[in-house]
Amino acid sequence: MNHRNGLIIVLSGFSGAGKGTIMKNLLKNYPDMYHLSISATTRDMRPGEQDGREYFFKTREEFDAMIANGEFLEYATFNGNSYGTPKAYVEQLANEGKDVILEIEVQGALQVKEIFPEALLLFVTPPSAQTLKERLVGRGTESEDVICQRLAISAKESHLMEKYDYLIVNDVLENSVREVHEIIQCEHFRTARNKSAIQEMQKELTIFSKGE
Amino acid sequence: MNHRNGLIIVLSGFSGAGKGTIMKNLLKNYPDMYHLSISATTRDMRPGEQDGREYFFKTREEFDAMIANGEFLEYATFNGNSYGTPKAYVEQLANEGKDVILEIEVQGALQVKEIFPEALLLFVTPPSAQTLKERLVGRGTESEDVICQRLAISAKESHLMEKYDYLIVNDVLENSVREVHEIIQCEHFRTARNKSAIQEMQKELTIFSKGE
Repeated sequence: MNHRNGLIIVLSGFSGAGKGTIMKNLLKNYPDMYHLSISATTRDMRPGEQDGREYFFKTREEFDAMIANGEFLEYATFNGNSYGTPKAYVEQLANEGKDVILEIEVQGALQVKEIFPEALLLFVTPPSAQTLKERLVGRGTESEDVICQRLAISAKESHLMEKYDYLIVNDVLENSVREVHEIIQCEHFRTARNKSAIQEMQKELTIFSKGE
Repeated sequence: MNHRNGLIIVLSGFSGAGKGTIMKNLLKNYPDMYHLSISATTRDMRPGEQDGREYFFKTREEFDAMIANGEFLEYATFNGNSYGTPKAYVEQLANEGKDVILEIEVQGALQVKEIFPEALLLFVTPPSAQTLKERLVGRGTESEDVICQRLAISAKESHLMEKYDYLIVNDVLENSVREVHEIIQCEHFRTARNKSAIQEMQKELTIFSKGE
């Protein structure tokens, strides 16, 4: 029972729930255990960014060609810029036995689950709707209208929470980071993820029980 | 998101896989976190045993009446003695928010899953069929025939492994104990086990997004 397949893990959740911070700390606390999927984007490279590190930077034409060739697991457009998860890159990491994490929004997450039903979907939420509202208000950067809009998006997304496998209630950051880590590690022990090891054992036990 | 339901956890596995030792260490390492289900039995009380601690000791008539009244989650007879898991006792512990563990054999485990589909089924196995054989041989107490019989039972049981949720490959005891603990803790974060908290959040977010 040695071979261990890499998991495809999707982390998403409400805007303001703290998923970015969880991700950053997960990669820091458990170095070399998790691999971040890198998205392709049409947006301009910013100072300090590097192609293939933050994003794979693409022209609109290149990005559209990737869509046409079915190269994306999911893609979406925000404020005129497109973002997509390259399928081949994710598959390659998982095939190498690496646990690869995708940080994407809810619609994209469900697209990934359709293509890879074995993907592990984690939903990050604040402890309560009240906390979510307070965090958005607390930023002090958005008008009341914008906050209502964002809460409306969250309300809509909340009806898709049940399609996720696990709920990460992000109250104390370090607890959430450890929970994400432990959930991923425990998922490796699921019988459904160990079918070939089980078949191997079934075969051997049958032989042994015949006194061979 | 405060209320936490107790889980009904079933631990079973191959004879010789070490599930008894895992259980004992789990209860020792994580005191007051887990509650052991106590079975009813018709077998005689042994010196040092206490009614309601090791078992609920019953006469044959009492046990048969419990069967007739549907009071058992599962029951089975070995060497003329009957053993059964009282349903009410398990339900009461889970309703109190306690994680209750049942250590039972494979057929019984699947009966529990039929009655409580939300039960968490853990299967303990040695790292390989070869190790299982060696452990049985190593005891030095059984004849070759008996060992083959036990391996034949294991071979049969191995075809039910996929009905379990998780596989505990018991190589290093302390790892297995920690794995069982972490699996149980992580299961509490499943969306399917947090439906009322999710519904609450959906309701609140809808209200907040209307600016109320």
